[in-house]
Amino acid sequence: MGRIVTLMTDFGLEDGYVAAMKGVILSICPDAVLVDITHAVPPQDIRWGAYILKSCYADFPPGTIHTAVVDPGVGTERRPLAVKTPRFVFIGPDNGLFSSALALEKTYEARVLENPAARRPNVSATFHGRDIFAPAAGHLAAGFPFASLGPEVKPLDPPWPVPKPTPGGISGTVLGWDRFGNIVTDIEREHLTHLGHGSTVHVVLGSHRIPRFGRTYADVPPGHALALMGSSDHMEIAVNQGNAAERFSAKRGQQVEVIFV
Amino acid sequence: MGRIVTLMTDFGLEDGYVAAMKGVILSICPDAVLVDITHAVPPQDIRWGAYILKSCYADFPPGTIHTAVVDPGVGTERRPLAVKTPRFVFIGPDNGLFSSALALEKTYEARVLENPAARRPNVSATFHGRDIFAPAAGHLAAGFPFASLGPEVKPLDPPWPVPKPTPGGISGTVLGWDRFGNIVTDIEREHLTHLGHGSTVHVVLGSHRIPRFGRTYADVPPGHALALMGSSDHMEIAVNQGNAAERFSAKRGQQVEVIFV
Amino acid sequence: MGRIVTLMTDFGLEDGYVAAMKGVILSICPDAVLVDITHAVPPQDIRWGAYILKSCYADFPPGTIHTAVVDPGVGTERRPLAVKTPRFVFIGPDNGLFSSALALEKTYEARVLENPAARRPNVSATFHGRDIFAPAAGHLAAGFPFASLGPEVKPLDPPWPVPKPTPGGISGTVLGWDRFGNIVTDIEREHLTHLGHGSTVHVVLGSHRIPRFGRTYADVPPGHALALMGSSDHMEIAVNQGNAAERFSAKRGQQVEVIFV
Repeated sequence: MGRIVTLMTDFGLEDGYVAAMKGVILSICPDAVLVDITHAVPPQDIRWGAYILKSCYADFPPGTIHTAVVDPGVGTERRPLAVKTPRFVFIGPDNGLFSSALALEKTYEARVLENPAARRPNVSATFHGRDIFAPAAGHLAAGFPFASLGPEVKPLDPPWPVPKPTPGGISGTVLGWDRFGNIVTDIEREHLTHLGHGSTVHVVLGSHRIPRFGRTYADVPPGHALALMGSSDHMEIAVNQGNAAERFSAKRGQQVEVIFV
Repeated sequence: MGRIVTLMTDFGLEDGYVAAMKGVILSICPDAVLVDITHAVPPQDIRWGAYILKSCYADFPPGTIHTAVVDPGVGTERRPLAVKTPRFVFIGPDNGLFSSALALEKTYEARVLENPAARRPNVSATFHGRDIFAPAAGHLAAGFPFASLGPEVKPLDPPWPVPKPTPGGISGTVLGWDRFGNIVTDIEREHLTHLGHGSTVHVVLGSHRIPRFGRTYADVPPGHALALMGSSDHMEIAVNQGNAAERFSAKRGQQVEVIFV
Repeated sequence: MGRIVTLMTDFGLEDGYVAAMKGVILSICPDAVLVDITHAVPPQDIRWGAYILKSCYADFPPGTIHTAVVDPGVGTERRPLAVKTPRFVFIGPDNGLFSSALALEKTYEARVLENPAARRPNVSATFHGRDIFAPAAGHLAAGFPFASLGPEVKPLDPPWPVPKPTPGGISGTVLGWDRFGNIVTDIEREHLTHLGHGSTVHVVLGSHRIPRFGRTYADVPPGHALALMGSSDHMEIAVNQGNAAERFSAKRGQQVEVIFV
């Protein structure tokens, strides 16, 4: 079997952009196994892209090449990167998109994608997914030596804040919501274990207070809200058989507070 | 070639949920061939999921493993199942999701997914797709013996009504509609053959009466409505080059009547 | 590795239609490598489908079989075709869907899909994607001789107008827009090279005049509009970090004018 190459973008599936990337990869490495992560990252929402990637990259077999393009800076001086960790390779723009995954991977080596041998002959100004990132993924899948991609660099630190302790709890941010309307926050399991065990916790989102912290959606009656640890170890706010994002008019970037009662 | 594993869910493609399932399957069985059926089943609409699965499962080669997750009961006591028929394997929650396909397959053997060797080590409360169903699919694709999955059980009967004869025809239900707005009902070819041959048929949906039963959309002028047998042998209501679901304000579960004139 | 078979349709991904096509192809040619181009072509928008196909078909390896179904005439007398060029095969309805790609391929041989050996035994009236086009793709991928598909024919000419020179520039048409709201027109790089070099160009769309022709989105400040050559060498109208289709209330088929200042 060929190497697995995943793709995550904010390109949507309405156009030929993702297909062009796949064609380029398969033209370079015909036995690559392509898997979509998602192409529905909200346009230019690097933070959500970083969350999605973190939520599933480690479920893939070691050796998988994760190609991720959420790239508001395409055509500017932002660097195109490949980052190699003990288990995976990440390819995409240097804008924080891999930072949440790299924080879990801990050690890595990052290279700027400068070697013309691993690019398309003509690089367009607007579509580096096809002209720089997909070729790098294809060449690496076909055995191109990682260290030959370009000079080693340090990736940018993530440009977003992290949850902060408050006198009575912790304050974080709404990252987005899934298809069911479950609101995902940047508050992680580790943030809450610091608070103590067995305690009662209230979650406050705008003018709404959710007094129940549960284990699964069905811990509350249909139509009732709860907070819970989601499957990727981020705190979520959900409504059993309902849509929490609509109910609470959630906004990306909105503040969310956990209060220790 | 590896075994084909299909995936059908109501997870949508906006998040990393489906990718996590694929990563898990490929980690267990690297040469599995993954094919998406759809991930756009309306949230928790088991009935529509059962219809979609029935409409296409048999087009796949014998040996295909169909993994289907529309699972409002995740985290409760509903059983996770694998069901083996002479040609296929179905994996998913025991809530009627396979019932329409199994009615066509006729004979089958169902097992509860209890064997920890075919699960993830840590099963979350909210994401059995990744932690129970995908591992079962991966292990079966890799040769795990079906009978070792867990004890044999009888799957639940489907929890929805079937079309009923009326004095002058047959009464059924709107299951949903496709992207073109073609309204799909639970009235099947076999229900109508019982009614006679060559007769004129009217279809009534709410306050609308569709006087034409055709063979293809183009049997009526553009903008005109007709009923017809759809490609999966369910009766549909369509508007040639138009959107019947919008035109007739169709609702899932709405009554539809076929009247023999 | 098996042969690559791409699929592009206007079926959407909500239903089982695309999965049925994939099942049919894999049943005939188990080692075919399936790649989606898109299934979100606006219903029955042949012109946009032709553009999408043209924008990415050539990125795939030689030998790729491109299967495309945007088919308002299904069930009528329109011919089902396979078209072989020096590098690719195209399969789909004879309605202009391949015409933009074929204009680039230049030489080709077209055959009507008449041979029952390369069709499903029972062809439905409404789903030729499953019953005619997917089987043809599967059989060709498995080595079926192209010339045996059916009699040779000349494909229809595209039924849409081409950009026209005006006294002060060129007049074209809006084809659609991508997920970012970038408006794609039928004015191509070659149309503009005829106009001269280094000149100032204004683009007029309805009551809006875009005075800037740039190289990449970031050539203007965030929120500002520009015209540019898109990655598939069609002129686009974009708003840096914004949505041009919404800003300018773009309509498919709307006139767009390039004025040479």
